[in-house]
Amino acid sequence: MKKSFGSKTFVLPSPTWIICAYDPTEKPTGAAVAWGGICSSVPPCVVVCLRKATYTHGCIMERKAFTVNVADEAHAVEADYFGLATGRKVDKFTLSGLTAVKGEKVDAPYIDEFPLIAECRVTGISEVGIHTQFVGEIIDIKANEDILDPEGLPDPEKVKPLFYMASVRSYYGIGGPVGKAFDIGKKIGK
Amino acid sequence: MKKSFGSKTFVLPSPTWIICAYDPTEKPTGAAVAWGGICSSVPPCVVVCLRKATYTHGCIMERKAFTVNVADEAHAVEADYFGLATGRKVDKFTLSGLTAVKGEKVDAPYIDEFPLIAECRVTGISEVGIHTQFVGEIIDIKANEDILDPEGLPDPEKVKPLFYMASVRSYYGIGGPVGKAFDIGKKIGK
Repeated sequence: MKKSFGSKTFVLPSPTWIICAYDPTEKPTGAAVAWGGICSSVPPCVVVCLRKATYTHGCIMERKAFTVNVADEAHAVEADYFGLATGRKVDKFTLSGLTAVKGEKVDAPYIDEFPLIAECRVTGISEVGIHTQFVGEIIDIKANEDILDPEGLPDPEKVKPLFYMASVRSYYGIGGPVGKAFDIGKKIGK
Repeated sequence: MKKSFGSKTFVLPSPTWIICAYDPTEKPTGAAVAWGGICSSVPPCVVVCLRKATYTHGCIMERKAFTVNVADEAHAVEADYFGLATGRKVDKFTLSGLTAVKGEKVDAPYIDEFPLIAECRVTGISEVGIHTQFVGEIIDIKANEDILDPEGLPDPEKVKPLFYMASVRSYYGIGGPVGKAFDIGKKIGK
Protein backbone atom coordinates (compact mmCIF):
# COMPACT_ATOMS: atom_id res chain seq x y z
CA MET A 1 0.00 0.00 0.00
CA LYS A 2 1.52 3.26 -1.12
CA LYS A 3 1.02 6.63 0.52
CA SER A 4 -0.54 9.29 -1.69
CA PHE A 5 0.97 12.80 -1.90
CA GLY A 6 -1.27 14.43 -4.51
CA SER A 7 0.07 16.66 -7.25
CA LYS A 8 3.78 17.20 -6.46
CA THR A 9 7.11 17.38 -8.31
CA PHE A 10 8.58 14.41 -6.39
CA VAL A 11 9.59 12.43 -9.48
CA LEU A 12 13.26 11.88 -8.55
CA PRO A 13 15.92 12.57 -9.66
CA SER A 14 16.48 15.98 -11.24
CA PRO A 15 19.76 17.41 -12.54
CA THR A 16 21.41 20.59 -11.27
CA TRP A 17 22.39 22.65 -14.28
CA ILE A 18 23.39 26.27 -14.66
CA ILE A 19 21.91 27.66 -17.87
CA CYS A 20 24.00 30.57 -19.13
CA ALA A 21 23.37 33.31 -21.66
CA TYR A 22 24.50 36.86 -22.48
CA ASP A 23 22.33 39.84 -21.57
CA PRO A 24 21.84 42.81 -23.96
CA THR A 25 24.99 44.50 -22.56
CA GLU A 26 27.12 41.37 -23.17
CA LYS A 27 27.17 40.63 -19.45
CA PRO A 28 27.22 36.86 -18.90
CA THR A 29 24.47 35.61 -16.62
CA GLY A 30 22.79 32.34 -15.74
CA ALA A 31 20.14 30.51 -13.75
CA ALA A 32 20.14 27.26 -11.77
CA VAL A 33 17.74 24.83 -13.39
CA ALA A 34 16.54 21.43 -12.15
CA TRP A 35 13.57 21.16 -14.49
CA GLY A 36 14.60 19.60 -17.78
CA GLY A 37 16.56 16.77 -19.33
CA ILE A 38 17.85 15.27 -22.54
CA CYS A 39 14.91 15.07 -24.95
CA SER A 40 16.24 13.57 -28.18
CA SER A 41 19.07 11.31 -29.33
CA VAL A 42 19.01 12.31 -33.02
CA PRO A 43 19.76 15.15 -33.17
CA PRO A 44 20.99 15.37 -29.56
CA CYS A 45 18.71 17.88 -27.84
CA VAL A 46 18.12 19.05 -24.30
CA VAL A 47 15.06 20.71 -22.82
CA VAL A 48 15.47 23.28 -20.04
CA CYS A 49 12.56 24.97 -18.29
CA LEU A 50 12.73 28.51 -16.91
CA ARG A 51 10.13 30.80 -15.43
CA LYS A 52 9.48 33.95 -17.43
CA ALA A 53 10.39 35.97 -14.32
CA THR A 54 14.05 34.95 -14.54
CA TYR A 55 16.52 37.35 -16.15
CA THR A 56 18.12 34.50 -18.09
CA HIS A 57 14.75 33.71 -19.74
CA GLY A 58 14.73 37.03 -21.63
CA CYS A 59 18.41 36.68 -22.55
CA ILE A 60 17.79 33.28 -24.17
CA MET A 61 14.71 34.59 -25.98
CA GLU A 62 16.85 37.37 -27.47
CA ARG A 63 19.86 35.37 -28.69
CA LYS A 64 18.32 31.91 -29.09
CA ALA A 65 21.37 30.30 -27.54
CA PHE A 66 22.43 28.99 -24.13
CA THR A 67 24.91 26.68 -22.48
CA VAL A 68 24.16 23.88 -20.03
CA ASN A 69 26.79 23.75 -17.29
CA VAL A 70 26.71 20.52 -15.25
CA ALA A 71 27.16 21.56 -11.61
CA ASP A 72 29.55 19.34 -9.67
CA GLU A 73 29.87 18.70 -5.93
CA ALA A 74 32.82 21.09 -5.68
CA HIS A 75 30.62 23.98 -6.88
CA ALA A 76 27.39 23.27 -5.01
CA VAL A 77 27.48 26.63 -3.22
CA GLU A 78 28.01 28.56 -6.46
CA ALA A 79 25.29 26.52 -8.21
CA ASP A 80 22.80 27.26 -5.44
CA TYR A 81 23.71 30.95 -5.56
CA PHE A 82 22.81 31.03 -9.26
CA GLY A 83 19.31 29.93 -8.18
CA LEU A 84 18.99 32.59 -5.47
CA ALA A 85 20.29 35.83 -7.01
CA THR A 86 18.95 37.65 -10.06
CA GLY A 87 21.07 38.82 -12.98
CA ARG A 88 18.88 41.91 -13.14
CA LYS A 89 20.55 43.25 -10.01
CA VAL A 90 23.96 41.59 -9.76
CA ASP A 91 26.76 40.11 -11.82
CA LYS A 92 26.56 36.48 -10.65
CA PHE A 93 29.86 35.52 -12.25
CA THR A 94 31.83 38.26 -10.51
CA LEU A 95 30.24 37.70 -7.11
CA SER A 96 30.64 33.91 -7.22
CA GLY A 97 34.18 34.09 -8.58
CA LEU A 98 33.33 31.95 -11.61
CA THR A 99 34.83 32.58 -15.03
CA ALA A 100 32.65 33.12 -18.10
CA VAL A 101 34.17 31.88 -21.38
CA LYS A 102 32.62 32.88 -24.69
CA GLY A 103 31.07 29.87 -26.39
CA GLU A 104 32.92 28.57 -29.40
CA LYS A 105 29.86 27.40 -31.33
CA VAL A 106 26.97 29.51 -29.98
CA ASP A 107 26.43 33.08 -28.76
CA ALA A 108 26.40 32.22 -25.05
CA PRO A 109 29.00 31.96 -22.29
CA TYR A 110 29.96 28.82 -20.37
CA ILE A 111 31.45 28.36 -16.90
CA ASP A 112 35.15 27.54 -17.11
CA GLU A 113 35.32 25.96 -13.64
CA PHE A 114 32.52 23.45 -14.35
CA PRO A 115 33.76 20.06 -15.65
CA LEU A 116 31.18 19.38 -18.35
CA ILE A 117 29.23 21.83 -20.51
CA ALA A 118 27.03 21.83 -23.61
CA GLU A 119 26.68 24.61 -26.18
CA CYS A 120 23.08 24.75 -27.43
CA ARG A 121 21.13 26.50 -30.15
CA VAL A 122 17.43 27.06 -29.41
CA THR A 123 15.24 25.08 -31.80
CA GLY A 124 11.94 25.12 -29.93
CA ILE A 125 10.07 27.28 -27.42
CA SER A 126 6.79 26.31 -25.74
CA GLU A 127 4.91 27.07 -22.54
CA VAL A 128 4.04 24.51 -19.86
CA GLY A 129 2.42 25.83 -16.69
CA ILE A 130 4.49 28.67 -15.27
CA HIS A 131 7.60 27.58 -17.20
CA THR A 132 8.92 28.11 -20.71
CA GLN A 133 10.45 24.99 -22.26
CA PHE A 134 13.51 25.82 -24.33
CA VAL A 135 14.58 22.95 -26.56
CA GLY A 136 18.23 23.29 -27.49
CA GLU A 137 20.10 21.31 -30.07
CA ILE A 138 23.42 20.30 -28.55
CA ILE A 139 26.05 21.66 -30.93
CA ASP A 140 29.07 20.75 -28.82
CA ILE A 141 29.92 19.00 -25.56
CA LYS A 142 33.09 20.17 -23.81
CA ALA A 143 34.75 18.42 -20.87
CA ASN A 144 37.82 18.91 -18.72
CA GLU A 145 40.56 16.38 -19.52
CA ASP A 146 40.82 15.34 -15.86
CA ILE A 147 37.27 13.95 -15.75
CA LEU A 148 37.72 11.54 -18.69
CA ASP A 149 37.84 7.77 -18.29
CA PRO A 150 40.47 5.52 -19.94
CA GLU A 151 38.34 5.47 -23.10
CA GLY A 152 38.35 9.26 -23.20
CA LEU A 153 34.67 9.65 -22.20
CA PRO A 154 33.27 11.77 -19.35
CA ASP A 155 33.45 9.53 -16.25
CA PRO A 156 30.41 10.15 -14.00
CA GLU A 157 32.42 9.38 -10.85
CA LYS A 158 34.98 12.03 -11.84
CA VAL A 159 32.39 14.58 -13.02
CA LYS A 160 30.58 14.18 -9.65
CA PRO A 161 27.35 15.79 -10.92
CA LEU A 162 24.96 17.26 -8.37
CA PHE A 163 21.43 15.87 -8.22
CA TYR A 164 18.53 18.00 -7.06
CA MET A 165 15.94 16.03 -5.12
CA ALA A 166 12.65 17.90 -5.15
CA SER A 167 11.02 15.93 -2.32
CA VAL A 168 13.52 17.27 0.22
CA ARG A 169 14.75 20.34 -1.71
CA SER A 170 18.38 19.23 -1.34
CA TYR A 171 21.41 18.35 -3.43
CA TYR A 172 22.96 14.87 -3.45
CA GLY A 173 26.14 13.39 -4.86
CA ILE A 174 26.79 10.32 -6.97
CA GLY A 175 27.37 6.79 -5.64
CA GLY A 176 28.97 3.87 -7.45
CA PRO A 177 28.20 2.13 -10.76
CA VAL A 178 25.25 -0.28 -10.66
CA GLY A 179 25.42 -1.89 -14.11
CA LYS A 180 25.75 -1.48 -17.87
CA ALA A 181 22.63 -0.26 -19.65
CA PHE A 182 21.20 -2.33 -22.52
CA ASP A 183 23.01 -5.27 -20.96
CA ILE A 184 22.14 -6.27 -17.38
CA GLY A 185 18.48 -6.85 -18.33
CA LYS A 186 19.34 -9.48 -20.95
CA LYS A 187 19.10 -12.28 -18.39
CA ILE A 188 15.31 -11.84 -18.15
CA GLY A 189 13.19 -13.90 -20.51
CA LYS A 190 16.11 -16.11 -21.55
CA MET B 1 41.24 23.94 -21.96
CA LYS B 2 38.27 21.67 -22.47
CA LYS B 3 38.12 18.74 -24.85
CA SER B 4 35.40 18.98 -27.52
CA PHE B 5 33.09 16.02 -28.22
CA GLY B 6 30.76 17.47 -30.83
CA SER B 7 27.02 16.87 -30.80
CA LYS B 8 26.39 14.25 -28.06
CA THR B 9 23.87 13.52 -25.31
CA PHE B 10 26.53 13.71 -22.56
CA VAL B 11 24.65 16.25 -20.43
CA LEU B 12 24.69 14.32 -17.15
CA PRO B 13 22.71 13.15 -15.27
CA SER B 14 19.56 11.50 -16.62
CA PRO B 15 16.89 9.65 -14.64
CA THR B 16 15.93 6.00 -15.11
CA TRP B 17 12.16 5.85 -15.29
CA ILE B 18 9.79 3.15 -16.47
CA ILE B 19 6.86 4.75 -18.28
CA CYS B 20 3.81 2.47 -18.11
CA ALA B 21 0.53 2.36 -20.01
CA TYR B 22 -2.20 -0.10 -21.02
CA ASP B 23 -2.30 -1.52 -24.52
CA PRO B 24 -5.61 -1.93 -26.43
CA THR B 25 -6.15 -5.40 -24.89
CA GLU B 26 -5.69 -4.00 -21.33
CA LYS B 27 -2.26 -5.62 -21.10
CA PRO B 28 0.04 -3.43 -18.97
CA THR B 29 3.28 -2.53 -20.69
CA GLY B 30 6.08 -0.01 -20.29
CA ALA B 31 9.34 1.39 -21.57
CA ALA B 32 12.58 2.46 -19.88
CA VAL B 33 13.09 6.17 -20.41
CA ALA B 34 16.11 8.34 -19.57
CA TRP B 35 15.14 11.31 -21.73
CA GLY B 36 12.88 13.67 -19.83
CA GLY B 37 12.46 15.46 -16.54
CA ILE B 38 10.19 17.61 -14.43
CA CYS B 39 9.13 20.55 -16.61
CA SER B 40 6.80 22.69 -14.48
CA SER B 41 6.18 23.44 -10.80
CA VAL B 42 2.66 24.87 -11.19
CA PRO B 43 0.95 22.69 -12.15
CA PRO B 44 3.49 19.93 -11.46
CA CYS B 45 4.30 18.41 -14.85
CA VAL B 46 6.81 15.93 -16.22
CA VAL B 47 8.05 15.51 -19.78
CA VAL B 48 8.98 12.02 -21.02
CA CYS B 49 10.40 11.35 -24.47
CA LEU B 50 9.74 8.14 -26.40
CA ARG B 51 10.56 7.06 -29.92
CA LYS B 52 7.52 6.40 -32.10
CA ALA B 53 8.85 2.87 -32.66
CA THR B 54 8.16 1.87 -29.05
CA TYR B 55 5.00 -0.05 -28.26
CA THR B 56 4.35 2.14 -25.22
CA HIS B 57 4.28 5.26 -27.47
CA GLY B 58 1.11 4.10 -29.22
CA CYS B 59 -0.49 3.06 -25.96
CA ILE B 60 0.01 6.53 -24.45
CA MET B 61 -1.30 8.18 -27.64
CA GLU B 62 -4.47 6.12 -27.31
CA ARG B 63 -5.31 6.64 -23.64
CA LYS B 64 -3.53 9.95 -22.96
CA ALA B 65 -2.29 8.65 -19.62
CA PHE B 66 0.88 7.11 -18.22
CA THR B 67 2.70 6.50 -14.98
CA VAL B 68 6.31 7.37 -14.16
CA ASN B 69 7.90 4.62 -12.08
CA VAL B 70 11.21 5.67 -10.47
CA ALA B 71 13.59 2.72 -10.90
CA ASP B 72 15.63 1.95 -7.80
CA GLU B 73 18.95 0.13 -7.40
CA ALA B 74 17.17 -3.05 -6.31
CA HIS B 75 15.36 -3.23 -9.67
CA ALA B 76 18.15 -2.21 -12.05
CA VAL B 77 17.95 -5.51 -13.95
CA GLU B 78 14.18 -5.24 -14.42
CA ALA B 79 14.48 -1.57 -15.41
CA ASP B 80 17.09 -2.39 -18.05
CA TYR B 81 14.93 -5.23 -19.35
CA PHE B 82 12.07 -2.77 -19.93
CA GLY B 83 14.46 -0.94 -22.27
CA LEU B 84 15.49 -4.06 -24.17
CA ALA B 85 12.26 -5.99 -24.82
CA THR B 86 9.22 -4.84 -26.77
CA GLY B 87 5.65 -5.05 -25.51
CA ARG B 88 4.61 -5.92 -29.06
CA LYS B 89 6.07 -9.40 -28.59
CA VAL B 90 6.16 -10.10 -24.86
CA ASP B 91 4.43 -9.34 -21.59
CA LYS B 92 7.22 -7.48 -19.81
CA PHE B 93 5.47 -7.56 -16.43
CA THR B 94 5.02 -11.34 -16.44
CA LEU B 95 8.54 -12.07 -17.65
CA SER B 96 10.20 -9.70 -15.19
CA GLY B 97 8.02 -10.78 -12.29
CA LEU B 98 6.80 -7.25 -11.60
CA THR B 99 3.25 -6.48 -10.51
CA ALA B 100 1.03 -4.05 -12.44
CA VAL B 101 -1.48 -2.15 -10.29
CA LYS B 102 -4.28 -0.21 -11.92
CA GLY B 103 -3.79 3.51 -11.44
CA GLU B 104 -6.14 5.17 -9.00
CA LYS B 105 -6.32 8.54 -10.77
CA VAL B 106 -5.45 7.78 -14.41
CA ASP B 107 -6.06 4.99 -16.93
CA ALA B 108 -2.56 3.50 -16.70
CA PRO B 109 -0.85 0.85 -14.56
CA TYR B 110 2.01 1.40 -12.12
CA ILE B 111 4.70 -0.96 -10.84
CA ASP B 112 3.92 -2.11 -7.31
CA GLU B 113 7.53 -3.07 -6.50
CA PHE B 114 8.95 0.37 -7.35
CA PRO B 115 9.19 2.75 -4.36
CA LEU B 116 8.00 5.98 -5.94
CA ILE B 117 5.55 6.51 -8.80
CA ALA B 118 3.58 9.31 -10.44
CA GLU B 119 0.17 9.08 -12.15
CA CYS B 120 0.06 11.44 -15.11
CA ARG B 121 -2.53 12.76 -17.55
CA VAL B 122 -1.17 13.79 -20.97
CA THR B 123 -1.57 17.53 -21.53
CA GLY B 124 0.87 18.07 -24.38
CA ILE B 125 2.39 16.15 -27.28
CA SER B 126 5.15 17.46 -29.55
CA GLU B 127 7.94 16.10 -31.73
CA VAL B 128 11.65 16.74 -31.18
CA GLY B 129 14.06 14.88 -33.44
CA ILE B 130 13.27 11.16 -33.38
CA HIS B 131 11.37 11.44 -30.10
CA THR B 132 7.86 12.41 -29.10
CA GLN B 133 7.67 14.60 -26.01
CA PHE B 134 4.72 13.70 -23.81
CA VAL B 135 4.00 16.34 -21.19
CA GLY B 136 2.07 14.83 -18.31
CA GLU B 137 0.38 16.70 -15.50
CA ILE B 138 1.23 14.88 -12.28
CA ILE B 139 -2.12 14.01 -10.73
CA ASP B 140 -0.75 11.95 -7.85
CA ILE B 141 2.57 10.87 -6.36
CA LYS B 142 2.57 7.56 -4.50
CA ALA B 143 5.41 6.28 -2.31
CA ASN B 144 6.11 3.24 -0.17
CA GLU B 145 5.94 4.03 3.53
CA ASP B 146 9.40 2.54 4.13
CA ILE B 147 11.15 5.16 1.97
CA LEU B 148 9.77 8.18 3.85
CA ASP B 149 11.94 10.42 6.05
CA PRO B 150 10.95 11.57 9.57
CA GLU B 151 8.95 14.41 8.01
CA GLY B 152 7.01 11.93 5.91
CA LEU B 153 8.63 12.92 2.61
CA PRO B 154 10.33 10.58 0.09
CA ASP B 155 13.95 10.26 1.31
CA PRO B 156 16.34 10.08 -1.68
CA GLU B 157 18.77 7.84 0.22
CA LYS B 158 15.94 5.38 0.90
CA VAL B 159 14.43 5.61 -2.59
CA LYS B 160 17.90 4.88 -4.05
CA PRO B 161 16.94 6.11 -7.55
CA LEU B 162 18.99 4.86 -10.49
CA PHE B 163 20.76 7.44 -12.65
CA TYR B 164 21.46 6.80 -16.32
CA MET B 165 24.76 8.29 -17.46
CA ALA B 166 24.72 8.68 -21.22
CA SER B 167 28.48 9.23 -21.64
CA VAL B 168 29.23 5.67 -20.47
CA ARG B 169 25.78 4.10 -21.05
CA SER B 170 25.65 2.85 -17.44
CA TYR B 171 23.51 3.11 -14.33
CA TYR B 172 24.78 4.68 -11.11
CA GLY B 173 23.47 4.91 -7.57
CA ILE B 174 23.07 7.83 -5.19
CA GLY B 175 25.74 9.13 -2.80
CA GLY B 176 25.23 11.31 0.25
CA PRO B 177 23.58 14.70 0.78
CA VAL B 178 25.64 17.72 -0.30
CA GLY B 179 23.52 20.63 0.94
CA LYS B 180 20.13 22.30 1.18
CA ALA B 181 18.91 24.00 -1.96
CA PHE B 182 17.96 27.70 -1.81
CA ASP B 183 20.20 27.90 1.24
CA ILE B 184 23.88 27.01 0.87
CA GLY B 185 24.37 29.70 -1.78
CA LYS B 186 23.27 32.52 0.55
CA LYS B 187 26.81 33.07 1.77
CA ILE B 188 27.85 34.51 -1.61
CA GLY B 189 27.50 38.24 -2.10
CA LYS B 190 26.90 38.90 1.61
